[in-house]
Amino acid sequence: MQLTELETPALLLDRAKLERNIARMRTQLTSLGGVSHRPHLKTAKSIEVARLVAGAGGPITVSTLLEAERFGAAGFSDILYAVGIAPNKLERVIALRRRGIDLSIVTDNVEAAEAVAAAGREAGEPIPVLIEIDSDGHRAGVRPDQPELLVAIARALSDGAQVRGIMTHAGGSYDARTRPELVRIAAQERDSAVACAETLRAAGFAAPVVSIGSTPTALSATGLDGVTEVRAGVYLFFDLVMHGIGVAAIDEIALSVLTTVIGHQRDKGWILVDAGWMAMSRDRGTANQSLDQGYGLVCDAAGNPFTDLIMIAASQEHGILAIRDGSSAPLPDLPYGTRLRILPNHACATAAQFGEYQVVEDGQVAACWPRFNGW
Amino acid sequence: MQLTELETPALLLDRAKLERNIARMRTQLTSLGGVSHRPHLKTAKSIEVARLVAGAGGPITVSTLLEAERFGAAGFSDILYAVGIAPNKLERVIALRRRGIDLSIVTDNVEAAEAVAAAGREAGEPIPVLIEIDSDGHRAGVRPDQPELLVAIARALSDGAQVRGIMTHAGGSYDARTRPELVRIAAQERDSAVACAETLRAAGFAAPVVSIGSTPTALSATGLDGVTEVRAGVYLFFDLVMHGIGVAAIDEIALSVLTTVIGHQRDKGWILVDAGWMAMSRDRGTANQSLDQGYGLVCDAAGNPFTDLIMIAASQEHGILAIRDGSSAPLPDLPYGTRLRILPNHACATAAQFGEYQVVEDGQVAACWPRFNGW
Repeated sequence: MQLTELETPALLLDRAKLERNIARMRTQLTSLGGVSHRPHLKTAKSIEVARLVAGAGGPITVSTLLEAERFGAAGFSDILYAVGIAPNKLERVIALRRRGIDLSIVTDNVEAAEAVAAAGREAGEPIPVLIEIDSDGHRAGVRPDQPELLVAIARALSDGAQVRGIMTHAGGSYDARTRPELVRIAAQERDSAVACAETLRAAGFAAPVVSIGSTPTALSATGLDGVTEVRAGVYLFFDLVMHGIGVAAIDEIALSVLTTVIGHQRDKGWILVDAGWMAMSRDRGTANQSLDQGYGLVCDAAGNPFTDLIMIAASQEHGILAIRDGSSAPLPDLPYGTRLRILPNHACATAAQFGEYQVVEDGQVAACWPRFNGW
Repeated sequence: MQLTELETPALLLDRAKLERNIARMRTQLTSLGGVSHRPHLKTAKSIEVARLVAGAGGPITVSTLLEAERFGAAGFSDILYAVGIAPNKLERVIALRRRGIDLSIVTDNVEAAEAVAAAGREAGEPIPVLIEIDSDGHRAGVRPDQPELLVAIARALSDGAQVRGIMTHAGGSYDARTRPELVRIAAQERDSAVACAETLRAAGFAAPVVSIGSTPTALSATGLDGVTEVRAGVYLFFDLVMHGIGVAAIDEIALSVLTTVIGHQRDKGWILVDAGWMAMSRDRGTANQSLDQGYGLVCDAAGNPFTDLIMIAASQEHGILAIRDGSSAPLPDLPYGTRLRILPNHACATAAQFGEYQVVEDGQVAACWPRFNGW
């Protein structure tokens, strides 16, 4: 199918870029001693993308139990659900494990560990658990300076669950702006995770897994000794936030929204399109970076960016395009009906607004890959 | 079903509040001389909600052709698609009209008018069009001081389409903060629309419809002489942005996200929950209001707000709750596993993150109403 046959807005996925991004991460992990990859599929939520990056069976990481069910049904049998477990989800976790899926879960507190152990005992199904570590103070997790808490959680798990190891996500890396900063955060992520695993081992727990995450740290790490797996995921598509952090070129962004010009406010230098925040999402992740990309960077239908043309405002189904503040770039002449592509701030958020990808190969729509949103 | 049987996150819709909000708008429009209501269903995207507010057949307003198709199939036969038309959508518009749905569309430029007229001529199906007016400079539309453009668009439509009238959306009302300001914007919306309709009539076009929109202006208008219909929609659910504008009480917000406590960072005063931006959306519509509500205001499971407890940060599937900056309110004791409700900034954006509503009546889940997302 031609791109011109698609109704707009539509979510485009450039297959060649996706494959190049996968190869780039593979090379990086090989250079770090061949550490295992457990790609995070919260961005892609697609069986086809999962097969490209993780082969037929995994290992993979997910952010919802719906993902675990869908990927599990498609043959992925080694799955980490990487969000601290809520008690109301344990029944579904056990049901997934009984279907033969090696689903592991995460927690960072004794109360949850007790709930998991009790559910595992009751079901006769010891659930494997990674204890979450907070390596950079940005969200959940046991701090590395809380070894007593770490061991208390492991003890609470031991009768009914399995202490599989340690996981951390250096989300603070999203605020990094320089390569040395990224290298430092990556080292801190590794050091914290490995130290906590050693604390567990010294207390008598095998803790075989040391799992770290985040695209910026995975691409910036200079050594991963002691780490057993890397969970990066957004690198599959990349986005303007990753570009702003300095880990992706614009040309590596595989995801875009196809849209159509529906009008102009010529005296204001505005071009109106039929993609608003319902298509782009409300994510403004570049707002605090050195280059604010508005709701996205505008490209022609073939994917070539216009200089400094961004989506400056979005309502539900309208986007307003204009030259960014401070730029003297000329406004391109884009008549009514012109098709454009918008590169997103945040691939996870933009992709979540759509039910499927239009997969572009050699400038044509070669396939339509479904996504699974919701929980 | 009990609320405690729901897995989290889940989208709750309080039916009693929804019905009270519908009654409030009905009373308001009656007090304004009984102007017709064409509710905007871009927020609800639900057949059941549409039937409560618009009876069996409409009239209704939609933001996507998917909504037009779904509502059309459910018996709603008078539908306005209120986004400037893109040429690639005309075929689908004609197909809908041929199914007996009186679907009207919108544009604000001569090029689009020519495309619509040509498509209508070719199909032998004259498409009814409202010409969009820009009453407050915030987005699309012909300015009231451009009567020549207005008439040129009407002329371009006349051979192949029908000039049904004028529409405007006073989106600038979302920036209003006081009642007198809202009254002024509502009057300006009315005056602009009516003046433009008179321009068309003076040029020989019947232009029977004068359609205005926006919840803040509909609830603030003191007179709507010359207006034939009002398209408000977000008032069905209301949200924190509408509360910040001053047109809704917290107790009128019918939509919330049910979530569960999954952990704490006690030294920071943080409570972690299993609803992040994937559930709340990335909408930060209150960020520029006098009271920034973060990603939402936290209530207990019955819907009673805690003082100053908001979602201060959100990642994909994690929310961080804390007392808002500057408040001395105590952090409530909310142990692991506690269920909470989060009131959203923007009902349209939060609802769009879910595939269905869990409809709450008398504290129980009485029904599950599907939504239709996408295009």
